[in-house]
Amino acid sequence: MNYEIDNLDKQILSLLMQDVTRAYTDIAKELNVSGGTIHVRMKKLTEMGVVKGAQLLVNPSAVGFDICAFIGVFLEKGSGYKETVEKMRQIPEIVELHYTTGSYSMFAKIICRDTNHLREVLNEKLQPIQGVQRTETLISLEESINRQIKIE
Amino acid sequence: MNYEIDNLDKQILSLLMQDVTRAYTDIAKELNVSGGTIHVRMKKLTEMGVVKGAQLLVNPSAVGFDICAFIGVFLEKGSGYKETVEKMRQIPEIVELHYTTGSYSMFAKIICRDTNHLREVLNEKLQPIQGVQRTETLISLEESINRQIKIE
Amino acid sequence: MNYEIDNLDKQILSLLMQDVTRAYTDIAKELNVSGGTIHVRMKKLTEMGVVKGAQLLVNPSAVGFDICAFIGVFLEKGSGYKETVEKMRQIPEIVELHYTTGSYSMFAKIICRDTNHLREVLNEKLQPIQGVQRTETLISLEESINRQIKIE
Amino acid sequence: MNYEIDNLDKQILSLLMQDVTRAYTDIAKELNVSGGTIHVRMKKLTEMGVVKGAQLLVNPSAVGFDICAFIGVFLEKGSGYKETVEKMRQIPEIVELHYTTGSYSMFAKIICRDTNHLREVLNEKLQPIQGVQRTETLISLEESINRQIKIE
Amino acid sequence: MNYEIDNLDKQILSLLMQDVTRAYTDIAKELNVSGGTIHVRMKKLTEMGVVKGAQLLVNPSAVGFDICAFIGVFLEKGSGYKETVEKMRQIPEIVELHYTTGSYSMFAKIICRDTNHLREVLNEKLQPIQGVQRTETLISLEESINRQIKIE
Amino acid sequence: MNYEIDNLDKQILSLLMQDVTRAYTDIAKELNVSGGTIHVRMKKLTEMGVVKGAQLLVNPSAVGFDICAFIGVFLEKGSGYKETVEKMRQIPEIVELHYTTGSYSMFAKIICRDTNHLREVLNEKLQPIQGVQRTETLISLEESINRQIKIE
Amino acid sequence: MNYEIDNLDKQILSLLMQDVTRAYTDIAKELNVSGGTIHVRMKKLTEMGVVKGAQLLVNPSAVGFDICAFIGVFLEKGSGYKETVEKMRQIPEIVELHYTTGSYSMFAKIICRDTNHLREVLNEKLQPIQGVQRTETLISLEESINRQIKIE
Amino acid sequence: MNYEIDNLDKQILSLLMQDVTRAYTDIAKELNVSGGTIHVRMKKLTEMGVVKGAQLLVNPSAVGFDICAFIGVFLEKGSGYKETVEKMRQIPEIVELHYTTGSYSMFAKIICRDTNHLREVLNEKLQPIQGVQRTETLISLEESINRQIKIE
Repeated sequence: MNYEIDNLDKQILSLLMQDVTRAYTDIAKELNVSGGTIHVRMKKLTEMGVVKGAQLLVNPSAVGFDICAFIGVFLEKGSGYKETVEKMRQIPEIVELHYTTGSYSMFAKIICRDTNHLREVLNEKLQPIQGVQRTETLISLEESINRQIKIE
Repeated sequence: MNYEIDNLDKQILSLLMQDVTRAYTDIAKELNVSGGTIHVRMKKLTEMGVVKGAQLLVNPSAVGFDICAFIGVFLEKGSGYKETVEKMRQIPEIVELHYTTGSYSMFAKIICRDTNHLREVLNEKLQPIQGVQRTETLISLEESINRQIKIE
Repeated sequence: MNYEIDNLDKQILSLLMQDVTRAYTDIAKELNVSGGTIHVRMKKLTEMGVVKGAQLLVNPSAVGFDICAFIGVFLEKGSGYKETVEKMRQIPEIVELHYTTGSYSMFAKIICRDTNHLREVLNEKLQPIQGVQRTETLISLEESINRQIKIE
Repeated sequence: MNYEIDNLDKQILSLLMQDVTRAYTDIAKELNVSGGTIHVRMKKLTEMGVVKGAQLLVNPSAVGFDICAFIGVFLEKGSGYKETVEKMRQIPEIVELHYTTGSYSMFAKIICRDTNHLREVLNEKLQPIQGVQRTETLISLEESINRQIKIE
Repeated sequence: MNYEIDNLDKQILSLLMQDVTRAYTDIAKELNVSGGTIHVRMKKLTEMGVVKGAQLLVNPSAVGFDICAFIGVFLEKGSGYKETVEKMRQIPEIVELHYTTGSYSMFAKIICRDTNHLREVLNEKLQPIQGVQRTETLISLEESINRQIKIE
Repeated sequence: MNYEIDNLDKQILSLLMQDVTRAYTDIAKELNVSGGTIHVRMKKLTEMGVVKGAQLLVNPSAVGFDICAFIGVFLEKGSGYKETVEKMRQIPEIVELHYTTGSYSMFAKIICRDTNHLREVLNEKLQPIQGVQRTETLISLEESINRQIKIE
Repeated sequence: MNYEIDNLDKQILSLLMQDVTRAYTDIAKELNVSGGTIHVRMKKLTEMGVVKGAQLLVNPSAVGFDICAFIGVFLEKGSGYKETVEKMRQIPEIVELHYTTGSYSMFAKIICRDTNHLREVLNEKLQPIQGVQRTETLISLEESINRQIKIE
Repeated sequence: MNYEIDNLDKQILSLLMQDVTRAYTDIAKELNVSGGTIHVRMKKLTEMGVVKGAQLLVNPSAVGFDICAFIGVFLEKGSGYKETVEKMRQIPEIVELHYTTGSYSMFAKIICRDTNHLREVLNEKLQPIQGVQRTETLISLEESINRQIKIE
């Protein structure tokens, strides 16, 4: 990506990261530029892949999802990562999936309704995937921080 | 929380989770209810803590943050969790922090510019915190899935 | 289960958990209700699955069972849990079996006569089960607490 | 203990382990002995510590205790086991406690209402005990076997 | 084994464990019994399997064996222990072999000439045995204690 | 040590390692040398520290020692090895002690009467030693090989 | 560093990485440039820190250094890394030292004469350093590859 | 190797290890010997395999290689080491490869351009090798020491 993000881009992103629903005219006023500039910049940032959209933040536990867990997955053969990813994508409870250093072949974040649901996801969805040997699960008992990076 | 989420709530959330910028009137048309109903429901869902706001999705690597890592933190004494959380909050690179089962006292997700920045966060910000004994770091070499839970 | 346990249920359970052989009339007197009430409630609690029966408490070591051990079982494939459970049930020395988070596929509690008997159970009964890869054994050298939960 | 358990003792124990509420006269009939013999034997077995009483079996999840977990406890100094046991006894959620071989100083079984309750027990009751360094928790996602040893 | 070892047996064993070459008449004198008694007792202890013979103690490093190592062996299937033992017996460098609790399927003590010899034993003798998956090696850098148990 | 062991030395050692009680005259005959040569050589080998004596081989379990265990010891500070060795020497149940590579600071072999005795050694003798942080115990459930190295 | 390495630089480095003693005039001929160009480029590459000098490659085992080991160091507090590095520098046997992700605070490569020398370095030089808690040692039994990166 | 390195050899090696480009006549002067002696000795040391050549020291990060990592490789069968080495040799990013004690079958040092390149090496080059089961990666976040052994 050749586009170099400048200071104005960062200020715009910074304000929208605090409040995504804020009007562009309002942001323009605060940054002393025209409303059109905000539009142009946001369009460019979106085209460049810097901005990937916006997301409604829903409290998982308020909609009945009480368990957040991290799962280290051991594959029978580490090189099977890519094929396994495709099968993982079919499991909606998996919200993040990483290829990581360390002892696991894959590392997933998963959101479930309760421990029963977690057992079902592990035993009936994840562990039967061909190539998955075994899993190690860390259950989050409290989420103390959850925020985005800060762009200065 | 006594409020029971009904089917209409779920349909609204589902549509907004796909596109948070979509107009309420548009959603109302699709669900065959009045625009006012959408407003009332979203207000209620926000008041109840079901909806926690909206978030601009920025690609960390596009703004120069190339490293995503998971850090298991061992405390000198596991019970020091709460005090340590407050000090962790001062480190902007930590985007998630959990109290988990398993061998770590805390489990963090961190976003850094490069391995040099990661070293600095670990050695100069995180490890000097009183009560932190040592850390174990998993670096994500590829993020294959990143999405929200699906509300049916 | 729709049945909501009330305070009287809890008081009855609490007294019987202290002394299961105590007469219902005696319990009724203490709780200022009729003996019939105790009968009705216990019948209901049993029908609802709250009470699963009563158990003679025998000291294993007094009847020649000196070794209590916990065994983490690694399966060749984590998803083989359910089939393996059926084979585990044939091993009378296994008194508890769990599907757990963490690195083991299964976690068992086992009571044996001596270390020789333990070796026999591990090597001749448990490890030959198809799908069992290896086991890790923790031997209890002293049981310091063994009691039921307290219902307040 | 000098008392040698004979076959009759084993038969009595075996029948009562199947149904503790069964009348002694009934047992006597089945075993072709007098009712008095059963009384004498059970008295002796209780005095010898072979029989430690009887226990009402309550389904923890039916009375609101949904989480069963195993906790490995690391002490700052392994020799502090005995003092720590006394403090553990004050935590009613701990239903079993063992001094084990392997890497943990202590190994506990714990019954909690939910993951929130588990967090509270770990962070506010168990980890603050002086001498406790850190804990490792395995959550049971399913209890597949739970029974007593078989006396042949 | 029905034979009960008495005090005289223990005294004899104790003296011979200190100096196996000591004359029986000498021992008899010290213990105030006849020389014949010593003969009778030692014959009985040998027949009963209490005494398994005597051993010349050779310093391994003095005859060119500089490396003492402990090797944890993981089998592909823990139940293959017995067959594997037979193949292990063909490797003269293995001086002890145990079936142990803990994570290894087998635990061996091995004496080698140097690290080159150790590599050869591991890579060319032990790891090629069918059923052996991998090994973990602890090298002894100093043997601080090596003695027999004390019989009081 | 400057003394080079020659072939005759090796043959003598080899025969005595098979049977330490064998008469020197008998060995001399087999090796076609004079009895005096055997005496001279054994004296030299003993002076040089090649031969450290002889040992009566007693079956530990026959004299009531049923448990053989390996114990990894973690010290608070690895450099405290030498001081700790002196305190370990006071524990007669420790029959071997090594300073090893790998994660333990020390590695011991221990012989005990039963699991109760093992608990006592661990909790009352070994773990209270100043500088000892914690221990990990592997219990031998079967000793399949126990022999000396072979000198060719 | 602003200097961009070009193809000619890479070709020069590539040839010298194969044979550092080769004459610049010879290299110049092969690459069809003047000898002066090689001088200028190498001077620049050295000034920029691309080239850090040259090194005689000595076979450690040929000069009596038979043991190559990797040592994971656990510090009492991970943040003590920098101070500890200074003390590590005083130990000539340490030839590489890294601050790594994973469970160790530091990771070192060490060259010693024999296992006795290794014990001395670990127990008398490295472990007594203040702040060092314990170490884990991997001994290399064979070095199969040792080369520089390839610049294309 | 029968050649015994003497003091003069060591002095020559020592000076050249400090500066490999230094003229032999210069070294000869410092050591009070003739230039020819230096030539003769270096020729002999090279023939004996003591000196393996010289190496240009290039700063990997200056030529675009920012990541240095250590990789523990688990083979499906430890005995497959030798065959796997040959395949490893085809991966230029691997700069060191060892057969080590400890839990890994192989231990490698690897130099990559960035975390993306590391992912590619792991997932597309190393893990697909037949016989490689899984890998564990430690990333160096800072290299604090890198030097040769000191010959006294």
